[in-house]
Amino acid sequence: PAAGLAETGDQALLKQARQLFKPLPDNMATQENPISPARVELGRKLFFDPRISVDGTVSCARCHLPQLYGTDGLRKAIGNHGKANPRNSPTVLNAALQGAIAAHWRGDRKSVEDQAVQALVGPPSFGLAKYEDAIAKLKAIPGYLPLFKAAFPRDPSPFTQDNWGTAIGAYERTLVTPAPFDAYLKGNTRALSPTAQAGLREFISVGCASCHNGTGVGGTMYQKFGRFEDYWKLTGSKEPDKGRFDVTKNAADLYVFKVPILRNVVMTPPYFHDGSVTELPDAIRIMARAQLGKTLSDTQVKQIVAFLESLTGKLPENFQTVPVLPTSAFQAP
Amino acid sequence: PAAGLAETGDQALLKQARQLFKPLPDNMATQENPISPARVELGRKLFFDPRISVDGTVSCARCHLPQLYGTDGLRKAIGNHGKANPRNSPTVLNAALQGAIAAHWRGDRKSVEDQAVQALVGPPSFGLAKYEDAIAKLKAIPGYLPLFKAAFPRDPSPFTQDNWGTAIGAYERTLVTPAPFDAYLKGNTRALSPTAQAGLREFISVGCASCHNGTGVGGTMYQKFGRFEDYWKLTGSKEPDKGRFDVTKNAADLYVFKVPILRNVVMTPPYFHDGSVTELPDAIRIMARAQLGKTLSDTQVKQIVAFLESLTGKLPENFQTVPVLPTSAFQAP
Ligand code: HEC
Ligand code: HEC
Ligand code: HEC
Ligand code: HEC
Ligand SMILES: [Ca+2]
Ligand SMILES: [Ca+2]
Repeated sequence: PAAGLAETGDQALLKQARQLFKPLPDNMATQENPISPARVELGRKLFFDPRISVDGTVSCARCHLPQLYGTDGLRKAIGNHGKANPRNSPTVLNAALQGAIAAHWRGDRKSVEDQAVQALVGPPSFGLAKYEDAIAKLKAIPGYLPLFKAAFPRDPSPFTQDNWGTAIGAYERTLVTPAPFDAYLKGNTRALSPTAQAGLREFISVGCASCHNGTGVGGTMYQKFGRFEDYWKLTGSKEPDKGRFDVTKNAADLYVFKVPILRNVVMTPPYFHDGSVTELPDAIRIMARAQLGKTLSDTQVKQIVAFLESLTGKLPENFQTVPVLPTSAFQAP
Repeated sequence: PAAGLAETGDQALLKQARQLFKPLPDNMATQENPISPARVELGRKLFFDPRISVDGTVSCARCHLPQLYGTDGLRKAIGNHGKANPRNSPTVLNAALQGAIAAHWRGDRKSVEDQAVQALVGPPSFGLAKYEDAIAKLKAIPGYLPLFKAAFPRDPSPFTQDNWGTAIGAYERTLVTPAPFDAYLKGNTRALSPTAQAGLREFISVGCASCHNGTGVGGTMYQKFGRFEDYWKLTGSKEPDKGRFDVTKNAADLYVFKVPILRNVVMTPPYFHDGSVTELPDAIRIMARAQLGKTLSDTQVKQIVAFLESLTGKLPENFQTVPVLPTSAFQAP
């Protein structure tokens, strides 16, 4: 009977979880942003190619490294000529899930495609003065012409910044990392350890899931960071970032950030928009205090960590294995 | 009979080639530098980990990218804080073959192990002030302790710069890229196209193979760059590098460089110690003039390119697929 009870409890938890979360799709293509194998393959090469940047050292993979689960391990990213970025690099894995709300910590990008286009002229990112510079650099690598033609067959001159964005976006829309939690949501309750299930229960009952929900376990809304206490008092952040306020100039957006997706969060320290917190248990405690006015017990933290671990999936093969880039000089006849 | 003659010619060429070159071994371990799976796996993680460098952006893979065949596509490498390196990044693929002579363009490293140790404190490379800084950074990543212990089981405190070098060296000693030319040397004459075989013939008869020989098709000796003409007049190099002279202060070493290995050379532009030449056919023409006092015909150049293409192997799987690094914060319990 004890086992029977536990099973009933397990089923109730699964039912509750299914109302809040969804398993990952096979890819993140949408009607508006469909993908094709040729675009994905081109986008994958572009993602890993540093030669398009102003100093030849910056590719998307410079800040979104596969070996660090699509992040760079830094508090704040560093781009061309060693330039400091204002915020922490989020992972590109599953990032395209956040279609409903804009990308970046402050929601100042429309889509992964828009993000990729703007990165070209981002001063601390690729650092190019204008899009034409990117096009010229792409054209100087003969191997890209057939790839752009195959990806955009109806386009008479396919070297454009929009096609750059479309191709990289198509690639990013394949970067899903199905995890034990997805198997659980699909009905295999044993995919989560008892501790992870206890953590899931806490994650819901404490209130985390009121913000971190949906397929990404986050990425569905904006929220003020520090609803109960100024966040910088808990994180030790030196110069508080005003968040979405700087984008919208709307007083209600002061200290508002996107609720980040928590998939693979165990693998992507340091935490928060400024990378101010190194250890995940600390980040969880800060969340409870800042966002919910609660103090968690050690057991609760341990259980929530176990749940968050169940969000770690295997790296996509087309991300962990890097593509061979077309050489910029002589092409094999 | 014509076919018979051709075959005889083919066999004579193969015989000649076997006197000058050798197929790649399975790995490049030596008695002095043996390898073990635990060391290779640790070395592979260290090779791809940027968190040990002074600004957290520089790993070996920063300048030796798998997507660019172990090079960076730059004329001269760029390290921490955007600092310029004085020379072009050679590929790490098959680099450990050059045991007999020291590594680097000017021969100022004893082995791949020594190279990896010194990179830690190289000002434009990892940029650390002292080895202790590297050790401290390694210790701060809990996941490395079990890996160092497994790799150096008899070492009570395995975090040392020598073990760093030994592990990375062990990994590098696995990075071989068997190519069509190896199949040819093993007796499969059809592994090389007729044009490539003609190129091999030219490569030998013109005199290239007098310097570029052995398993690496290079990497066996030092030679003056510019025996018949000042090299900078042909390459357009701005400030001529004095080469090995700056290392030995011996007048005979003025403008002397290591004869580089030519394996995968088609994939590793730009060329020469300063990356001054972009196109391989130009590099070949310059070599003939500067080193042999000869002017090659277009056909000769085309054939030699075809031969050099037969030196391109598949990327090693443990290089093209990057390792997942231990996270620096909380470790899964
Ligand atoms: C110099 C470092 C750097 C480079 C280069 C870089 N990124 Fe980023 N990326 C970041 C940082 C930092 C952010 C967060 C920016 C912010 O919120 O202000 C980010 C955000 C993103 C996001 C949004 C993620 C989310 O969950 O909101 C995506 C997607 C992304 N980058 C993909 C790319 C692609 C594709 C490229 C190449 C075209 C690229 N990045 C180049 C550092 C970089
Ligand atoms: C009211 C909304 C809200 C609630 C409730 C909430 N969060 Fe958050 N969470 C956020 C926002 C917004 C951020 C981004 C903060 C920043 O970095 O600016 C965030 C960030 C995080 C991060 C860091 C992610 C990263 O990659 O840097 C973790 C981990 C996290 N939350 C876990 C939790 C947990 C666990 C709970 C419950 C104890 C919780 N959150 C409750 C809104 C919320
Ligand atoms: C900042 C760029 C940069 C970094 C970081 C870097 N290298 Fe290099 N590497 C170079 C350059 C440039 C050379 C040639 C130096 C010279 O000859 O003066 C080189 C030479 C080498 C060589 C000799 C190759 C040959 O054929 O002579 C090996 C092996 C090597 N590097 C491996 C590594 C390893 C292992 C690491 C990490 C521990 C590393 N490199 C870090 C740029 C870099
Ligand atoms: C007398 C010795 C010698 C001869 C003969 C010689 N080379 Fe070289 N080769 C060198 C040296 C030394 C370098 C390195 C020059 C530098 O960059 O400082 C080199 C560099 C090269 C490079 C550039 C490799 C790279 O990765 O940057 C190529 C390609 C090359 N040689 C091909 C040839 C060909 C083809 C021939 C015959 C036509 C030839 N060499 C004849 C000594 C020689
Ligand atoms: Ca992070
Ligand atoms: Ca080169």
